[in-house]
Amino acid sequence: MGEAIALTQQESGRKEKDLLGEAFVPADAYFGIQTQRAQRNFDLSGIPLHHFPQLVEALALVKLACARANNTLGFLNDSKTAAIEAAVKKILSGHYHDQFVVDMIQGGAGTSTNMNANEVIANIGLEQMGYAKGEYSHLHPNNDVNMSQSTNDAYPTAVRLSILLKHGDLVKALASLRDAFSAKGDEFADVIKMGRTQLQDAVPMTLGQEFKSFASTLTEDIDRIAGLSELLKEINLGGTAIGTGINTDPEYAKLAVNNLSELSGFEFKRASDLVEASSDMGAFVLFSGMLKRLAVKLSKISNDLRLLSMGPRCGLAEINLPAQQPGSSIMPGKINPVIPEAMNQVAYQVIGNDLALTMGAEAGQLQLNAMEPLIAYNVLESIRMLTQAMNMLKNRCIRGITANRDRCQELVDQSIGIITAVVPYIGYENSTRIAKAALESGRGVLELIREENLMSEADLSDLLKPDNMIAPQARRR
Amino acid sequence: MGEAIALTQQESGRKEKDLLGEAFVPADAYFGIQTQRAQRNFDLSGIPLHHFPQLVEALALVKLACARANNTLGFLNDSKTAAIEAAVKKILSGHYHDQFVVDMIQGGAGTSTNMNANEVIANIGLEQMGYAKGEYSHLHPNNDVNMSQSTNDAYPTAVRLSILLKHGDLVKALASLRDAFSAKGDEFADVIKMGRTQLQDAVPMTLGQEFKSFASTLTEDIDRIAGLSELLKEINLGGTAIGTGINTDPEYAKLAVNNLSELSGFEFKRASDLVEASSDMGAFVLFSGMLKRLAVKLSKISNDLRLLSMGPRCGLAEINLPAQQPGSSIMPGKINPVIPEAMNQVAYQVIGNDLALTMGAEAGQLQLNAMEPLIAYNVLESIRMLTQAMNMLKNRCIRGITANRDRCQELVDQSIGIITAVVPYIGYENSTRIAKAALESGRGVLELIREENLMSEADLSDLLKPDNMIAPQARRR
Amino acid sequence: MGEAIALTQQESGRKEKDLLGEAFVPADAYFGIQTQRAQRNFDLSGIPLHHFPQLVEALALVKLACARANNTLGFLNDSKTAAIEAAVKKILSGHYHDQFVVDMIQGGAGTSTNMNANEVIANIGLEQMGYAKGEYSHLHPNNDVNMSQSTNDAYPTAVRLSILLKHGDLVKALASLRDAFSAKGDEFADVIKMGRTQLQDAVPMTLGQEFKSFASTLTEDIDRIAGLSELLKEINLGGTAIGTGINTDPEYAKLAVNNLSELSGFEFKRASDLVEASSDMGAFVLFSGMLKRLAVKLSKISNDLRLLSMGPRCGLAEINLPAQQPGSSIMPGKINPVIPEAMNQVAYQVIGNDLALTMGAEAGQLQLNAMEPLIAYNVLESIRMLTQAMNMLKNRCIRGITANRDRCQELVDQSIGIITAVVPYIGYENSTRIAKAALESGRGVLELIREENLMSEADLSDLLKPDNMIAPQARRR
Amino acid sequence: MGEAIALTQQESGRKEKDLLGEAFVPADAYFGIQTQRAQRNFDLSGIPLHHFPQLVEALALVKLACARANNTLGFLNDSKTAAIEAAVKKILSGHYHDQFVVDMIQGGAGTSTNMNANEVIANIGLEQMGYAKGEYSHLHPNNDVNMSQSTNDAYPTAVRLSILLKHGDLVKALASLRDAFSAKGDEFADVIKMGRTQLQDAVPMTLGQEFKSFASTLTEDIDRIAGLSELLKEINLGGTAIGTGINTDPEYAKLAVNNLSELSGFEFKRASDLVEASSDMGAFVLFSGMLKRLAVKLSKISNDLRLLSMGPRCGLAEINLPAQQPGSSIMPGKINPVIPEAMNQVAYQVIGNDLALTMGAEAGQLQLNAMEPLIAYNVLESIRMLTQAMNMLKNRCIRGITANRDRCQELVDQSIGIITAVVPYIGYENSTRIAKAALESGRGVLELIREENLMSEADLSDLLKPDNMIAPQARRR
Repeated sequence: MGEAIALTQQESGRKEKDLLGEAFVPADAYFGIQTQRAQRNFDLSGIPLHHFPQLVEALALVKLACARANNTLGFLNDSKTAAIEAAVKKILSGHYHDQFVVDMIQGGAGTSTNMNANEVIANIGLEQMGYAKGEYSHLHPNNDVNMSQSTNDAYPTAVRLSILLKHGDLVKALASLRDAFSAKGDEFADVIKMGRTQLQDAVPMTLGQEFKSFASTLTEDIDRIAGLSELLKEINLGGTAIGTGINTDPEYAKLAVNNLSELSGFEFKRASDLVEASSDMGAFVLFSGMLKRLAVKLSKISNDLRLLSMGPRCGLAEINLPAQQPGSSIMPGKINPVIPEAMNQVAYQVIGNDLALTMGAEAGQLQLNAMEPLIAYNVLESIRMLTQAMNMLKNRCIRGITANRDRCQELVDQSIGIITAVVPYIGYENSTRIAKAALESGRGVLELIREENLMSEADLSDLLKPDNMIAPQARRR
Repeated sequence: MGEAIALTQQESGRKEKDLLGEAFVPADAYFGIQTQRAQRNFDLSGIPLHHFPQLVEALALVKLACARANNTLGFLNDSKTAAIEAAVKKILSGHYHDQFVVDMIQGGAGTSTNMNANEVIANIGLEQMGYAKGEYSHLHPNNDVNMSQSTNDAYPTAVRLSILLKHGDLVKALASLRDAFSAKGDEFADVIKMGRTQLQDAVPMTLGQEFKSFASTLTEDIDRIAGLSELLKEINLGGTAIGTGINTDPEYAKLAVNNLSELSGFEFKRASDLVEASSDMGAFVLFSGMLKRLAVKLSKISNDLRLLSMGPRCGLAEINLPAQQPGSSIMPGKINPVIPEAMNQVAYQVIGNDLALTMGAEAGQLQLNAMEPLIAYNVLESIRMLTQAMNMLKNRCIRGITANRDRCQELVDQSIGIITAVVPYIGYENSTRIAKAALESGRGVLELIREENLMSEADLSDLLKPDNMIAPQARRR
Repeated sequence: MGEAIALTQQESGRKEKDLLGEAFVPADAYFGIQTQRAQRNFDLSGIPLHHFPQLVEALALVKLACARANNTLGFLNDSKTAAIEAAVKKILSGHYHDQFVVDMIQGGAGTSTNMNANEVIANIGLEQMGYAKGEYSHLHPNNDVNMSQSTNDAYPTAVRLSILLKHGDLVKALASLRDAFSAKGDEFADVIKMGRTQLQDAVPMTLGQEFKSFASTLTEDIDRIAGLSELLKEINLGGTAIGTGINTDPEYAKLAVNNLSELSGFEFKRASDLVEASSDMGAFVLFSGMLKRLAVKLSKISNDLRLLSMGPRCGLAEINLPAQQPGSSIMPGKINPVIPEAMNQVAYQVIGNDLALTMGAEAGQLQLNAMEPLIAYNVLESIRMLTQAMNMLKNRCIRGITANRDRCQELVDQSIGIITAVVPYIGYENSTRIAKAALESGRGVLELIREENLMSEADLSDLLKPDNMIAPQARRR
Repeated sequence: MGEAIALTQQESGRKEKDLLGEAFVPADAYFGIQTQRAQRNFDLSGIPLHHFPQLVEALALVKLACARANNTLGFLNDSKTAAIEAAVKKILSGHYHDQFVVDMIQGGAGTSTNMNANEVIANIGLEQMGYAKGEYSHLHPNNDVNMSQSTNDAYPTAVRLSILLKHGDLVKALASLRDAFSAKGDEFADVIKMGRTQLQDAVPMTLGQEFKSFASTLTEDIDRIAGLSELLKEINLGGTAIGTGINTDPEYAKLAVNNLSELSGFEFKRASDLVEASSDMGAFVLFSGMLKRLAVKLSKISNDLRLLSMGPRCGLAEINLPAQQPGSSIMPGKINPVIPEAMNQVAYQVIGNDLALTMGAEAGQLQLNAMEPLIAYNVLESIRMLTQAMNMLKNRCIRGITANRDRCQELVDQSIGIITAVVPYIGYENSTRIAKAALESGRGVLELIREENLMSEADLSDLLKPDNMIAPQARRR
């Protein structure tokens, strides 16, 4: 975890200055004085920007898109533009990530993050141009790298892009988990078992239907997440400080947005109301709400897996989860459903993160939301954890699940739930009476129906074929 | 609020029986023994079903759609079908709503709600057929009204429909509120004011831009809510107990769904995986997440209205909210922003409701979610409250807002925020120095720039035209 | 549900006026113009003040305590004081509750509630004095009934008192539920069963221990709730508008607080910092956090009851919950755990309410929290629902629970969990090996230990006595 | 961030085995095979155990307390006990923290954490005894280090202890922040300013009163947190697997608890019902609820600081926050309230963490709560972040705050809020009329009162002395 670097007393390195005065920055640091101030100010989450590589990449891409626009418009000369371009490429190739050091949770609505990027790019660029780090008269973090930009448009744009960049991993993990459930659904297609509603014996189904339903519920979310990610493609780049586009050329916004689309491969569009787009966090709220929905589904599935594998001898024991580690420091031989348990916990954290983010979104005021860093952190962290956890669930649990076929059949055979299937023949009240009698006497439902001659033997045997109990069936009218 | 009716000792009325035994039901009640048991069991929220008229209507429509399907397939005779049809129409015309008495929060996954509907329809139907209430051999709540259905498909289908039925009111209130903001945006189009980021003076904008941004952010949600309401059109009708469709004819589900589409005017489609659809609450989670997003936006706007109207003399006082009631029992003349305050509170309640619902969704187990009643209650209540609150906000606040033009101008004139506009001319560091000097000396920014001859007078005067400060502008390259 | 009364066009009744102008109030209404305005402004939750009788009583008591203090100090004459006293007593005796009509969710930080109380008391008092309703020159809602008070001290004081007045019911329901669990713990003291950790078979225990643990966990909360209710006894009465006590006599606050203690029987104390006490909602946040803890415990217990009663034939089926209603509209004979399910849902609502309240508390600004009405509503509603739900759980579930003794024993006999008890004798690794062998072969643990001569027969038989497995036991050293 | 170490294919190092088979462990690792499995299973939060040094210390202390108890009872020989003692001391002196590598979020209810501790202590102990790491026949992680323990009692006990160990830092930061506010309260004791309720001008107060109220509200929480930390001293050590104390000597629990008290300096007591204590997470829920309350207070204070410092020229500007970093990448000279903004965000995260933890607590089942790791993580992280953030707030904001005295006075002078002070003299209705006239005409309140001869000049001048407006005052009766 990133401990705050205690540079306060530092008296070597290069000297930089800003609005507040001068300070020494370590000679080998690519970040500058403003990043250093932010490091000292904020030691909160312990999670530095580079914990999310996609965020570093996104910042670099945004800076390049803007530099190219400024160059096209004649405000940034070719030499500076080339230096920025070179710096961005170095960052994208994975170097310098460790220079993105600011804590994800920070005051200032992302200014520290934006300045961290501006400073690192300026200094890499300076070296590229043959100057020393800190010789900002040749390439300036604010005047050049940040030209035509404000934190208030560059930062949220980069956050949106970072989510899109990570989004593929999330969907891939989700689709792959879905496939694993689906494969198990095929494998268990002929395993008859009791369905349960409200934890009480209901009517028969197949274990395959149960696992296919897990696949189905995740399939919906693949589409849904993809759909909602469209929201993130609406950006406020060019709005600068408050969305009025102050300090930009009328042609700039369009150019910058197009450049970013081209560089990133995502089709960005400029928000139709840039003032609105500067303060609104609605896209993050809804996207996180979608992650919350996925978390809820994954938690429900994990709960089911744990219920179905209760045992080994005193529970349902319809399925076996693969053993991943010894389950107890005291109870020999105990194996626990540790993987779904971990999935549950990640789901709860994602739901908690959604709340933190929601409160941050509600706290926006006037032309900006100062809590954007918290919002960015929680969306990115939820995506990251869900991705990791879904891969864990697939690899270390779902793929290794086996069915206890005999156990499943045994439970169906001893149940009274099959009574439901005879309701259309003998009516709800007769059925209720039989069910009650079976329950009280311990006798079988079929035995009692036969005893009372309530149905013909032919109807009865037809009705009870497994295939007839797990799907609609035509009957006499 | 519905107090639980204490009928336990009742010994008059008509006698009915169910699985658990016999009981007297009041002679004039259209509900029956199972509804009465539920009333006694659950006295929790104090909110009866008929608090949400759309839910009553939706239940009636679902019953009719199913009855018609059963009739078409030859399982329900014409006479019974006609009786159900007549009963449903009476309910839809507004009678008998008071017979839907069960508490919204109930155990049993909605069985009590479903039986309340089955019993009321059966008894109205019986009267229609010339029989006395309770003569269920002629029209039976379970065998006939509930034919081919389970609570587990009929109830969630009705809940989805009830949301769709109420959805129009919500969107209408939202669109109408948006229009009110937009109209104010036009009215205030020429009011120059300071924009603020992080509550600190930033750069100029118009009050019209500010109000238009409120309209814009709500416009997005009109589309979004409509889009997400599509999710609710995917139903599990025909899945019966656990989605396997037990006790239904292979043709039934399609017929029932089509009937419901025709009756309601919404294009429902059968879920592709009925097992999944029986237990999954994802549609509600995401729809509520969308309501949460709307609540967050409305709360942010309300916060802004309260900030902008701070005063009358010791705050921003850029706008005036219309007085709706005396503001204090002790401070004479005080008027408070009571309408936005109430909006904020509704927003927080909606966010709280979303959490309750989320926990309910996560608690689903195996083939059903027993917490559906809580989920239904919270979605419906959030829609209801948001609709009421948006109408309140529009009628009692937005439409009456006036601008303090002089005050807005005065604040712009005395600000140092215009320094931002000169950055492209004199650079970030020069500008910073000037800003600092202005702040410390109390002198004006322009004065200092002129003193140092940093810009030509022509550039300066052009730059400072209001229209040039609130939008991008071309400049020398 | 309280529909908003549409009096806007009303032109009969008595005419009243306030800061904003004149309006007709219904002739028979005891509330006045300000209450009427509030009714029209706020139609949000649909829950009127009198939904919480304790809040009405608390408001009346606060008004009387203040009137007496004003009288003692010579500011309110005897005749007016007597009229207020008479009015308060009539309210306390249960009349006029229906005059407390304002919606619980309201803007204005409770001003509408306070004025509702002031107006009703004034008008009852006026009738008592022989005047007509509305003749406020003889007894004025603000000048007399509200003398020396602000909403900002009178309202939160009344809210605190209302919670204390309801608190007894909550604790009684809790203690009574605890007793029910404890009685079952005694009843089941000799029922040996398998304990389960992480849903996997662990080691034996008694069903009595399990139910006693439910009693124990609730016992803790009885003490804790009582302890935290002390927080509510610290009030800001006398602080008036912002805690500085403007418009009060230096002696007033002490007198008013003492009067309230005497009238209510609770020992109130004046907050040491009245400015802090005027805006701080910390007492409610912590008290609601305690209610949330209780909700979490009740939900966990309900989950356990539903798990233990899974069945009837395909689940654990260690206990039976009493049937309260038929469980299904389609599956005959099905009985569901509807009571614990309802308890779960109430718990989730309480947790959602806690969030709404928390957001309200966070939204306090400067010298007041304008969201107090939301906070009051959620605390009171959570207390009310928990009280109702705990009584339901006790009466309709716990008291009727029976144990399936044979089933419990059978599961212990077939388990391999007893292997844990031999670890001190044969070591963790040997035990692990035996457990694994038992699991794979389907053979018994004891059989395998004997086969390998790992323990003496004497040790073994001693070890396996039930009493030796459910508690610590001395062993050879 | 701890990347998962990919050891799967490793074929060097020492070979270890467990229930599931054999694996190579790196030769220099002090942890063993079970820790390694856990590392591979769980790569979720990225936060390893040693992120919380207090948790490592707490685990070590619990192990030592138990070892001493086992030695006293004759189950663990002196040589092994001495080795454990030596290992624990090495850990406490700060070495080997990096060997506590498991992810904080893990399945298995803490088994991996417990085994990580058992394995590290065993291997350090083995080296101490002159054996090689892994020669567990001489000192065994389960048989010896974990003797008489289960994860289910050792782990939650260690978590409780870890919170207590960190608790001092939290309270110290809180007290110190309180002191900073209190000092500012003294400094600003004579600065008269307008108080505001519902963001509207109310009545005068001093800036000192405002800052003292921040100190007061925090003072309450110092006591409250200390009080609630008592809950954490009730532990289930000796309960082993499910609280029945299986595999322990009847004397053991008392000895172990006493040892832990002695070692740690905290007075622990054994829970009266160990079965309850094994699964109940109530102490964490309430303690986290208390942290949430603190977060709410700190967020409210931060919001106030940001409101009061709005400006520099277009807001309240009553106070100045010390500049900590340049505020904008585009607006020169802009300084933002970055420190309170960061405090807000930490507060929201703590509230989100509280929700994650609450859901974890609710998910406990039967004899254990498998979500304990999530609960532990969120409590510890919230404590850590609150501590860091309070120190930041104090050092980088509160201590440097200055008042704009002239501005404060100016706002009071132009307000109409002083009208409240004359209500006792001229009545509520007269005052309302005057206030309204002042507001509409722009004239002063005093001017109008004098014009109408409503009060004597003597009364008036007395009334308006600042000292008389900020506290109760005696008046004519």
